[in-house]
Amino acid sequence: MTKEMPGGYNGRILRVNLTSKTAKAETIDEVICRRYIGGAGFITYYLWKELNPGIDALSPDNKLIFALGPLSGLQLPGAARHCVGTKSPLTGSIAKAESGGFWSAELKRAGYDAIIVEGRAKKPVYLWIQDGEASIRDASHLWGKETKETEATIRVELGDDRIQVALIGPGGENKVRYACVMHGLHDAAARGGSGAVMGSKNLKAIAVRGHKLPKVVDSERVKEIRQKVLEQSKGHWLSELGTGGVDMIQLEAVGNLPVRNFRDGLFPEVEQIHSGVMKDNTMWVGMEGCYACPVRCKKILQFDEPYRVDAAYGGPEYESIAALGSDCGMGNVKAIVKANERCGAYSLDTISTGSTIAFAMECFEKGLLTTKDTDGIELRFGNDEAMLKIIDLIARRQGIGNLLAEGTARMAEKIGKGSADFAMHVKGLENGMHDPRISAGLGLGYMVNPNGADHCANLFDLMFMSGPLIKELHHLGIIEPLPSDEISPRKVAIFRLVHLKKIVDDCSAVCLFLEYSLDRQAELVKAATGWEMGAVELIRVAERVMTVARLFNIQEGFSAADDVLPERFFQSKTDGVLADKPPLDRTAMEKAKSYYYTLMGWDAHGVPLPEKVEELYIE
Amino acid sequence: MTKEMPGGYNGRILRVNLTSKTAKAETIDEVICRRYIGGAGFITYYLWKELNPGIDALSPDNKLIFALGPLSGLQLPGAARHCVGTKSPLTGSIAKAESGGFWSAELKRAGYDAIIVEGRAKKPVYLWIQDGEASIRDASHLWGKETKETEATIRVELGDDRIQVALIGPGGENKVRYACVMHGLHDAAARGGSGAVMGSKNLKAIAVRGHKLPKVVDSERVKEIRQKVLEQSKGHWLSELGTGGVDMIQLEAVGNLPVRNFRDGLFPEVEQIHSGVMKDNTMWVGMEGCYACPVRCKKILQFDEPYRVDAAYGGPEYESIAALGSDCGMGNVKAIVKANERCGAYSLDTISTGSTIAFAMECFEKGLLTTKDTDGIELRFGNDEAMLKIIDLIARRQGIGNLLAEGTARMAEKIGKGSADFAMHVKGLENGMHDPRISAGLGLGYMVNPNGADHCANLFDLMFMSGPLIKELHHLGIIEPLPSDEISPRKVAIFRLVHLKKIVDDCSAVCLFLEYSLDRQAELVKAATGWEMGAVELIRVAERVMTVARLFNIQEGFSAADDVLPERFFQSKTDGVLADKPPLDRTAMEKAKSYYYTLMGWDAHGVPLPEKVEELYIE
Repeated sequence: MTKEMPGGYNGRILRVNLTSKTAKAETIDEVICRRYIGGAGFITYYLWKELNPGIDALSPDNKLIFALGPLSGLQLPGAARHCVGTKSPLTGSIAKAESGGFWSAELKRAGYDAIIVEGRAKKPVYLWIQDGEASIRDASHLWGKETKETEATIRVELGDDRIQVALIGPGGENKVRYACVMHGLHDAAARGGSGAVMGSKNLKAIAVRGHKLPKVVDSERVKEIRQKVLEQSKGHWLSELGTGGVDMIQLEAVGNLPVRNFRDGLFPEVEQIHSGVMKDNTMWVGMEGCYACPVRCKKILQFDEPYRVDAAYGGPEYESIAALGSDCGMGNVKAIVKANERCGAYSLDTISTGSTIAFAMECFEKGLLTTKDTDGIELRFGNDEAMLKIIDLIARRQGIGNLLAEGTARMAEKIGKGSADFAMHVKGLENGMHDPRISAGLGLGYMVNPNGADHCANLFDLMFMSGPLIKELHHLGIIEPLPSDEISPRKVAIFRLVHLKKIVDDCSAVCLFLEYSLDRQAELVKAATGWEMGAVELIRVAERVMTVARLFNIQEGFSAADDVLPERFFQSKTDGVLADKPPLDRTAMEKAKSYYYTLMGWDAHGVPLPEKVEELYIE
Repeated sequence: MTKEMPGGYNGRILRVNLTSKTAKAETIDEVICRRYIGGAGFITYYLWKELNPGIDALSPDNKLIFALGPLSGLQLPGAARHCVGTKSPLTGSIAKAESGGFWSAELKRAGYDAIIVEGRAKKPVYLWIQDGEASIRDASHLWGKETKETEATIRVELGDDRIQVALIGPGGENKVRYACVMHGLHDAAARGGSGAVMGSKNLKAIAVRGHKLPKVVDSERVKEIRQKVLEQSKGHWLSELGTGGVDMIQLEAVGNLPVRNFRDGLFPEVEQIHSGVMKDNTMWVGMEGCYACPVRCKKILQFDEPYRVDAAYGGPEYESIAALGSDCGMGNVKAIVKANERCGAYSLDTISTGSTIAFAMECFEKGLLTTKDTDGIELRFGNDEAMLKIIDLIARRQGIGNLLAEGTARMAEKIGKGSADFAMHVKGLENGMHDPRISAGLGLGYMVNPNGADHCANLFDLMFMSGPLIKELHHLGIIEPLPSDEISPRKVAIFRLVHLKKIVDDCSAVCLFLEYSLDRQAELVKAATGWEMGAVELIRVAERVMTVARLFNIQEGFSAADDVLPERFFQSKTDGVLADKPPLDRTAMEKAKSYYYTLMGWDAHGVPLPEKVEELYIE
């Protein structure tokens, strides 16, 4: 089986059916490896091939897939990522999210490239994979436990401290629609509710341990490139404070920072919540990193007053600080760090959690929710106690938490009364913490991303306004910077290429923050597999993956009408720099969407042309 | 001036106005270098920017451009190429053709990246460029001379044997619409009539000599890649017999060989004309090569009976053997070699010369031309004496030669009587010696190539039917072979990528026969210039070049209606393997054309969308 596989792959998928309590290894065809590469590509392919349209995402009919890339497990900075995907219980669309950490390298060494979980266990179980052998084990004693205790218990009972664990906390168990899958305690495949699907399957965890990497064809070349990446990673800006190291004060000044459910522009408390504060503060422990990566971009924070925050859960990234902080009008940095820790313990996506709370807070302030609904909680912007309390309720689906556990889109439907106009989501996925009113290309990405308003596989217009920063896009033929709020055919083309490039990152699967141009990834995949491969082939892979994701969504009833931004982005902010600036132009955004379809070979309704489907060998 | 230029470029164009007798150096903007790279890119850009629509191609209003790439002149196998372009007097469209040899390296060392020739000299002149200095010199004594004598005379009078000369013979002087520009005596920028434009300007030659290459940024990397290319070039199939080394007997067997104006399939005399015969024969001298290239793919032939053939003119490539041989029903190999020599001496494109004669022969056999028209010449298929006589007449535009000097399309117009149905050309350019009835992707290339039925920047479907051969397309994401006569969306996508890749070859400018994947070219351009460049950027350059060429043609009145194959390709052959096979499907070819437009971002009429024009920074 493995002898015919190209290097870099184990050539095996583990298919686990929890209903029938079986776990079987299957081979992966080399053709599928080459067409989809891995990670997000595998996820998309298998979901599209195997899921029946219209199934309930939280039923046993759904599948939950974990997939590695051909580079996963190699001693390469930033190659510690993998992808988790499913039909999203939040959006009903395809969902995929990447995680870093140590889990993917362990699974690679345990002999698999992917795990497909099907069905539903009658009672809680966890999966244990060790050097190719898989067993389904009872997890009754772990159900209800937070992630830290779960991980520790599993390691103790399996007798190996080096076991890596993908797992859920109470948020996943209770099928909070935006529950994530944690990998260890501070890496999450966060977006789209894969944790809820895991919970719906009564699957508490996947513990892995392995000792043997598949061969690579040209390990010398891999080492050479590793050396280059290492050199280029020295002094990486993320080593200082992680993504939280972005200048949040500057982000507020230009209008990017979300303030009070994206309503406002000014947030004077920003000086109290940015990462610098965390470093200066007594809460600072240090930085940690992923497998094989010297960048070490993960903050570790800890304090005991006014509540204890456990260093095991790391610390908040920019998205979490913004979602649980400024977006909720929250200037209390310790509350943000605590909220972030709770999301890790409960396995909740911090962006959707923060956004949903921000939406609830605005509803509350508008009188659409009252203390009657909230059991007396004054759910106002900036109320730190309320936020922390609400997170507990969400994870347990208690009281008002049961409403918030449904996510912003469903909440707006239930609450009604015009609340949809300020429900910040696309297709049901709460948007990332970047404002399309100042970053129009990113806005297009929110619109067309198959998993909703995702910020990861997206363009950061603000970064690419200046000559020096745009250099990392040069290999894509993007030479000239463009204003961040421009939405022209040029911007659409830039967006499309950057987007496809990031999809390639998610397939191969490397960290978007490190120096992995398309050309370098092609070289690496070539070195690992022995395939004659180039950057153009990788772009075609990403085109294929995006087109398959589109087909999946169309089958689920999505159309161009779902590729729309929240109403609020077409209004000015109440204050700050964007208050006096015209908001996004709806017509221009629709034109951009239409040109994006054209460039993708999709028709005016966003439906892939039959010719494109055939051309890309989607079959 | 040069200090700001990236490596690899001189940063200078020589603009020569023959009317005002001026020759001035101009700088090239780095932005234009990066957007168009060089070679065919420069040609296309400057023609589109500088020519007024509707001018007479043979008037002083036309311009003739010679352009190098950033790799020209480097010690790299296959990097000895450059491009010559103009508005074609044959087609009225943009014309561009590549030549190998030694001229481009010499011009690079003489300090220029391109020459733009404008206006018309009152009497014959030649241009002399030496280490940056340019002068316009009298050529009255050279006018009327064949190319060998011209080259020799110039070298003698300038006192340097190492001078490289681009030049025309009587064919160019007499404005034969398919006259070529020779570079030395056996390398031609052959197609589209640039030699006629040179003649119309009273410009006999451009002699160059130089001693200083521009710097490259990373010469070590260039050397490393050179080493790889050298290794991969060892035992190259072209070293044996050049392109004539293709198995012509096999080509006849599969139906690719043109026989009697593409009418017939069987040509038993093929065994008498293929390259092997030339090698076995007493005519064989040896092989020569281009600057810095060890492949040495150019046959040198010589004999004295029944007529003398001068070794100085090399020997015929596959295209010439087929055009002057089987396509004219000619089984006399010596006549073919002699005809090829005459084309070199007169500066005539062998493909158009052979095709035009084949067309005239069919007209003659059909009675549409008679001995009254031909001054008694029995212009029948296979008549070697007639062919050689006719070539002399064409070059001098004497008698029937004056009609044939106009090219197939104009002949068919003048002759009428249904002859257009077997006039083998697209847009006026006689098609290459490969049959779309067995190579449907190539047929699409004939249709849409901006310079007419060009075979160079095209797909060779027959080569890419088998697994091993398709490997060189893998880096473009083309993994699976396809039947050569298939014309599906997959084939269209393959054609487009291969086509764009070959346009990149023509920009950078490297030989399409050597191991220069897009990724490798990107690396080389990066090493030369210091730009952060990737394969995707190069593909975008080619897209830009093809879109500008399209805009040029549209401005000249071309439309989708001109992207059509000769009628004959929609009929079966009279005999041979294709006699029993359905001919090309017109509807399928139109569908393919339409999908090609879609992939290029052009509308249903083949007009580039304004968004695409903007996106590609065509300005």
